[in-house]
Amino acid sequence: MKTQIFIYDTTLRDGTQGEGVSLSVDDKLKIAKKLDQLGVHYIEGGWPGSNPKDMEFFLRAKELKLKHAKITAFGSTRRFGVTAEADANLNMILKSGVEAVAIFGKSWDFHVTEALGTTLEENLSMIYESVRFLKDKGLEVIYDAEHFFDGYKHNPEYAMVTIRKAMEAGADWLTLCDTNGGSLPHEISEIVARVCEEVGTKIGIHCHNDGELAVANSLAAVAAGATQVQGTINGLGERCGNANLISIIPNLQLKLGYACVSDEQLKQLTNTSRYVYEIANIVPQNTQPFVGQSAFAHKGGMHVSAILKDAETYEHIKPETVGNTRRVLVSELSGQSNLLFKAQELNIDLDKNKPEGRAIIQKVKELEYQGYQYEGAEASFELLVRKGLGDYEEVFTVESFKVLMEKIGEQDVVTEATVKVKVNGQTVHTVAEGNGPVNALDNALRKALEVFFPDLKEMYLTDYKVRVLSEHEATASKVRVLVESTKDGRDSWSTVGVSTNVIEASWEALLDSMRYALLGRHEEAVDIQLEEKERLGILNH
Amino acid sequence: MKTQIFIYDTTLRDGTQGEGVSLSVDDKLKIAKKLDQLGVHYIEGGWPGSNPKDMEFFLRAKELKLKHAKITAFGSTRRFGVTAEADANLNMILKSGVEAVAIFGKSWDFHVTEALGTTLEENLSMIYESVRFLKDKGLEVIYDAEHFFDGYKHNPEYAMVTIRKAMEAGADWLTLCDTNGGSLPHEISEIVARVCEEVGTKIGIHCHNDGELAVANSLAAVAAGATQVQGTINGLGERCGNANLISIIPNLQLKLGYACVSDEQLKQLTNTSRYVYEIANIVPQNTQPFVGQSAFAHKGGMHVSAILKDAETYEHIKPETVGNTRRVLVSELSGQSNLLFKAQELNIDLDKNKPEGRAIIQKVKELEYQGYQYEGAEASFELLVRKGLGDYEEVFTVESFKVLMEKIGEQDVVTEATVKVKVNGQTVHTVAEGNGPVNALDNALRKALEVFFPDLKEMYLTDYKVRVLSEHEATASKVRVLVESTKDGRDSWSTVGVSTNVIEASWEALLDSMRYALLGRHEEAVDIQLEEKERLGILNH
Repeated sequence: MKTQIFIYDTTLRDGTQGEGVSLSVDDKLKIAKKLDQLGVHYIEGGWPGSNPKDMEFFLRAKELKLKHAKITAFGSTRRFGVTAEADANLNMILKSGVEAVAIFGKSWDFHVTEALGTTLEENLSMIYESVRFLKDKGLEVIYDAEHFFDGYKHNPEYAMVTIRKAMEAGADWLTLCDTNGGSLPHEISEIVARVCEEVGTKIGIHCHNDGELAVANSLAAVAAGATQVQGTINGLGERCGNANLISIIPNLQLKLGYACVSDEQLKQLTNTSRYVYEIANIVPQNTQPFVGQSAFAHKGGMHVSAILKDAETYEHIKPETVGNTRRVLVSELSGQSNLLFKAQELNIDLDKNKPEGRAIIQKVKELEYQGYQYEGAEASFELLVRKGLGDYEEVFTVESFKVLMEKIGEQDVVTEATVKVKVNGQTVHTVAEGNGPVNALDNALRKALEVFFPDLKEMYLTDYKVRVLSEHEATASKVRVLVESTKDGRDSWSTVGVSTNVIEASWEALLDSMRYALLGRHEEAVDIQLEEKERLGILNH
Repeated sequence: MKTQIFIYDTTLRDGTQGEGVSLSVDDKLKIAKKLDQLGVHYIEGGWPGSNPKDMEFFLRAKELKLKHAKITAFGSTRRFGVTAEADANLNMILKSGVEAVAIFGKSWDFHVTEALGTTLEENLSMIYESVRFLKDKGLEVIYDAEHFFDGYKHNPEYAMVTIRKAMEAGADWLTLCDTNGGSLPHEISEIVARVCEEVGTKIGIHCHNDGELAVANSLAAVAAGATQVQGTINGLGERCGNANLISIIPNLQLKLGYACVSDEQLKQLTNTSRYVYEIANIVPQNTQPFVGQSAFAHKGGMHVSAILKDAETYEHIKPETVGNTRRVLVSELSGQSNLLFKAQELNIDLDKNKPEGRAIIQKVKELEYQGYQYEGAEASFELLVRKGLGDYEEVFTVESFKVLMEKIGEQDVVTEATVKVKVNGQTVHTVAEGNGPVNALDNALRKALEVFFPDLKEMYLTDYKVRVLSEHEATASKVRVLVESTKDGRDSWSTVGVSTNVIEASWEALLDSMRYALLGRHEEAVDIQLEEKERLGILNH
């Protein structure tokens, strides 16, 4: 029987303390769903009462109907000088409606007197009464001992007393925090071992990466007896980040024989990592252990020939166990198999031995080199493959577009777009305003196509993302635009455009989105009636 | 007396195996000089004979006149079936003229028979004869035992025999390599300890980061008796990279009491890390331990108020010991203390008890709610504070701008922007084309302001980032634009704009960027000469 380690994710709370990390409530809900699929046990959603966004998350999170994970709130022990019952923060936690809560208190005597400005005795009461109060309300309580390791190194007796107080008050977990991230594995190991020996409660570990040791420190704590690990996806977090769960989970599970998530869930690891980067709009780190694009990429010729004989020669684990793939940089093998795999998923018969198949593979490689990426744009990929196989008929063609933006004095910017589109030999010329150039183009294009396909009115865009590809070129650099559309709010499709001009890239993605919506509907185009033609001022060519 | 640990840098050899890492001979020479200033002991320059670039490096490196470091060559043991004397590779090493060499051989029985395709016995002769040959020529020889840990785990006896052979042949160092990067600290610790016990030669360690444990593994090896650490600057290298010397050096020196480099040299750490990123044209990772821009950046309001009392409360080391600096970020999570600290850094006297102070804090909170973020836009923040304090005079005003984009058929999009700006009662009306609307506006604005401030010609944008804030609104959603500008390529400033219109948001950030560049230069505006007025078609109002 393997020992179960409980994974406590704080991407949505401590992760957002990272510089440049900012998540909307919608972002947080999406990530929570993904974390649940990965099989984490706790999802810390925020600090209710610290800002209205966090409270909104807790209220909406109930509708997610998660399968595995408990949504957890974060908060501090009561303020000094007030009772737990009267403490605004503790009451906000109750109001958030969570089943589990992590509250932090001080373990370092120096912090109690210097940062908090109270007495060592009062700090102990704050810990005891806060934990007791939350336990009395029926919550699972994780007591986060802030600065535990630094505190222990300065005054071990006091640090031990603080966690004993939490234990006596009924805390379900005592989580020891290396808040400043500067501890070393042998220190973590010794201190956790002593705590486990002296304290009956289950122990957790919460590390930061300031010494590039957060993963090692977390593993050391587990080896010494901790059974809960706190961290974030991709190690997001303040300063150098929190302990990276994306590395901790496979190390614990594949190398050390602990149980964290199921084998099937472990295959979601790469996917989860990339999803969080995408939602947080952070460029993924290619060299990231386990899940990076380069993590199983082999460059050296010698390595490659050995890999072809036996992958174990230069790989520490099988990439597929964490949902990643091997890439052999000098050969084109890996690229092809990805493409073939994707085509298969779309039920398209793509044969690399036929000339069309080879031509498509070549085309995708060229486009990827230019900055296109089809991972998040499967509708554009499908259009590309269908075009290459001759299995695509253009439903409409664009003759021209024009955008005019003007700002005079302090007035709002006025944006107007015109679009000229041809369907079944008939040309429509439309104009629309919008909230910015892309929105105006979207409105004008839609207006034109709806003349022929009235049910396009139901289609709308649900997501729009811009990524600058070569940042050092500043405003003349290339951008990649991803657009997501839907008709019913459930099934959606994503398209991509790349250009040095953000408007052109957006336009390209918009066109693909419409083309995908109209796939196979060439014959259906509604004929324009005479009076309609007059109303629209249609030109017949 | 502190134990000396010898730092062996392989950025120029193993580092360049990283995906996307490519260094010219000039690049390598520059980095070698910098590494010498940092105080590393060995600089592995390349593999003579593997390509002409590497040989050129060795020949030119002699002119560098390094103070500390020995330039070292890399190579493999002789091929099987030839004598060491006849081996082309070993002869190229002699030709490179180095004093020290690292040659690698196989420690893992499986690799000898599978990857190399020879006998276990022949492999031992290859090791012995190659080391002997190089020692006879008077070189310092570092024997790199490839796959030592994996080999040891599979067949400890054979792995031990391979390094004993190198020792018997006179190797100066036996460096144990975790080539696949999958070992765990406790394994490294046990195996290194056994080797140190049984072998009289000095021991080195060479780790890879596939488990996010390379730093911890290197420290574990030193604790077990290794006195040489191999690694690369910023952990560059194949797959997930090599052990990161930038984290290993301060951990060994500041936390574990070993001697690596001098205290003065340690202050070059941040500088060296950024220099290597710059030369290798890799975007630095802000969250990088010790040297990242965010490594000592404080965001949470509570952290900041504690930092103001005593920095040790939330910092594991003093940032200046590694040449880094503390930063306090302004963000939605921050309380007043961040704002006050930031103002203090900018030498602005902001008092939260005065009405202007309170008004500014209120304004920042409102703007953050609208989507502004000042943690990456310190110049916009400074402008905001100065305006609030009445310490700002507008140098120019914008009367209007217009952007026109047109695409006809398959032709490229044409983008044109016009800008009307007023300085000292004089209006300039300019027009420019660009690579997209923002680039065109930037060009037109620049053209207008340069009439009055000719030295603005030196200013240019270095970075441009777009973040969509509320994605479910798709193309009508709010975006935040960050712009970074510089005059000399060294000091840069960042500004922010927010709007539902990406062009308006960019325009706002561009304007702030120009305003910041012109701070306090109200009086300086050059008068426009008559002929210039005519040329520009200036309107006088």
